[in-house]
Amino acid sequence: MTVAEAGVPAHPAVNVYAATLEEIREAANRIEPFAHKTPVMTSKTLDSLADCYLHFKCEIFQRVGAFKFRGAMNSVLSLSDEQAVHGVVTHSSGNHAAALACAARIRGIPAYIVIPSDAPQCKVDAVEGYGGLITRCEATVDARESTATSIQQRTGAKLIPPYNYGPTICGQGTMALELLAQVPQLDAIVVPICGGGMTSGIAVVAKGIKPGIKIIAAEPTGLNNAADVAASKDAGRIVECARPVTIADGLRGRMGDLTWPIIKDLVDEVVTVSEQEIVAAMRLLFERMKLVVEPSGAVGLAAVLSPKFKAYLRGQEGGLQNVGIILSGGNVDLAAAGLWENLLVAGYK
Amino acid sequence: MTVAEAGVPAHPAVNVYAATLEEIREAANRIEPFAHKTPVMTSKTLDSLADCYLHFKCEIFQRVGAFKFRGAMNSVLSLSDEQAVHGVVTHSSGNHAAALACAARIRGIPAYIVIPSDAPQCKVDAVEGYGGLITRCEATVDARESTATSIQQRTGAKLIPPYNYGPTICGQGTMALELLAQVPQLDAIVVPICGGGMTSGIAVVAKGIKPGIKIIAAEPTGLNNAADVAASKDAGRIVECARPVTIADGLRGRMGDLTWPIIKDLVDEVVTVSEQEIVAAMRLLFERMKLVVEPSGAVGLAAVLSPKFKAYLRGQEGGLQNVGIILSGGNVDLAAAGLWENLLVAGYK
Repeated sequence: MTVAEAGVPAHPAVNVYAATLEEIREAANRIEPFAHKTPVMTSKTLDSLADCYLHFKCEIFQRVGAFKFRGAMNSVLSLSDEQAVHGVVTHSSGNHAAALACAARIRGIPAYIVIPSDAPQCKVDAVEGYGGLITRCEATVDARESTATSIQQRTGAKLIPPYNYGPTICGQGTMALELLAQVPQLDAIVVPICGGGMTSGIAVVAKGIKPGIKIIAAEPTGLNNAADVAASKDAGRIVECARPVTIADGLRGRMGDLTWPIIKDLVDEVVTVSEQEIVAAMRLLFERMKLVVEPSGAVGLAAVLSPKFKAYLRGQEGGLQNVGIILSGGNVDLAAAGLWENLLVAGYK
Repeated sequence: MTVAEAGVPAHPAVNVYAATLEEIREAANRIEPFAHKTPVMTSKTLDSLADCYLHFKCEIFQRVGAFKFRGAMNSVLSLSDEQAVHGVVTHSSGNHAAALACAARIRGIPAYIVIPSDAPQCKVDAVEGYGGLITRCEATVDARESTATSIQQRTGAKLIPPYNYGPTICGQGTMALELLAQVPQLDAIVVPICGGGMTSGIAVVAKGIKPGIKIIAAEPTGLNNAADVAASKDAGRIVECARPVTIADGLRGRMGDLTWPIIKDLVDEVVTVSEQEIVAAMRLLFERMKLVVEPSGAVGLAAVLSPKFKAYLRGQEGGLQNVGIILSGGNVDLAAAGLWENLLVAGYK
């Protein structure tokens, strides 16, 4: 923690939220035996497209293939033995579900996972692979919540929310401690945003350690222009939007009462991106960096390559030379896109 | 070079070939300012599928996305100034063409690249991107060779063959110096084989530094059962086969008079794999390790997961605990397989 030890005065606001820098440092110690310290990768080709130096924090190489393991592991390890013995429960069709199942298995406690009926099979398989105890329910928020509640009542399991929860936010923030130790010269960090758990944790760490750093949230507009973080930041209050229709399946949630105050105060800019920009960014990551990144995970690069970000870059005094981008996860169902069959057809030339 | 300095006695044969351990060490020094030292990655999931510890040497992260840069850079840097000024020439539709164009640009000399008419457009684009001077020709060996010869006669450029050439073999061998320094406990290295340049270089280094190490060549049978290395090793002489019809487009060539003696003496085993096994290995690398690997590059993992390799593993005294696998390149045309369009259709759930 080179940077942390340098003793730079912290941003005044960072100790008033649901996650503090000190708690995030404790989370880092807690999960250190179990989480991977993910590498930072670079690409000269992408630097030249972006007009700055890009530093990609590869959470695609995190356990379960996504940053969500950090928050889930920290949440599970933060339980007392009395709480832990009854297990944990969540409702999710995404990486949080697999992460919680994996973290619970490591502690040796049951993980009850409520999965809505519209979840892709590959995600269900992942949860099963980590030994999660699956209950299927209808694909509505009501059904998910009531199913989880009834499991809680029956088992005494602890509900672990995917983002609006202190220990989850603290776990996600640990990646920023790593990133700033790996690349102390960062001027900005670009983070895909949904519920805001990752962005909150990163913002608390980064502003706490390096107050001048910029935090940029990257958000899909979706097919239905449902960019709620940008709208909320503009309005200064949480603005309700329709559920986003986006290929970025990890970014279809909403900010909560614990994450919004941090996003409101510490996020400097929100950059929205189109579906086409997301796929173009994925393609660059696959082709130029040889990295498999899911649509949600590519949203940060899509933002950095957008005209709005380039204008923002130029507008900063002294410019932003070094930009961190979180590649948040790599769990994309390429079989559903027919890749493996199509390769065997297209591959003979 | 921890391992190299340990002073283990070399295999008696390694100094009689077109590339020696000493020459490969010189090549490593020569290309060091330009080539990437590629990382070694691991995966617990794949270890458990393989029943041993796998160490993946990620040449997908090499410049131009493939190991071929090592040989091309060494070949270009080995030219005298008098030779170099006239440029270099080769005929190739694959990674060697892009690698030679890139290496020539670094030295500031022209690269004349003869590309057959059936080459995929993405490969032509790559050569163009590195400033290669392209001549198209008919898709026959005769046309390729005669076109290259006429360019040589016109320009005085030096022909740089893709594998059957000492400086190329030496360049490829440098990856084994790195790998054995990164993972000194390796018991075996599994290498995708085609013309044998990479396998030769690796074998000379590995047997020279660690005589007991096993070198296993991995080869596609193709749709037409054209596994010439296996057939040649069995016969003890080069056996001519039909050109392999395989998705592994980097492995459609033939051994030469410089590589065959090394393959004959130093390769311990050849494991052949089917087209389906290659795609299954690619899928594991994409899904479990988040790495984009081209079909040719996945042939090593396909071999390791095959029943024949597992039987070989069990047959070794004391077992083979630590196996290196070369992920030789990551240049696969996912656009040709329709991936980016299909994602935008399949991605809304």
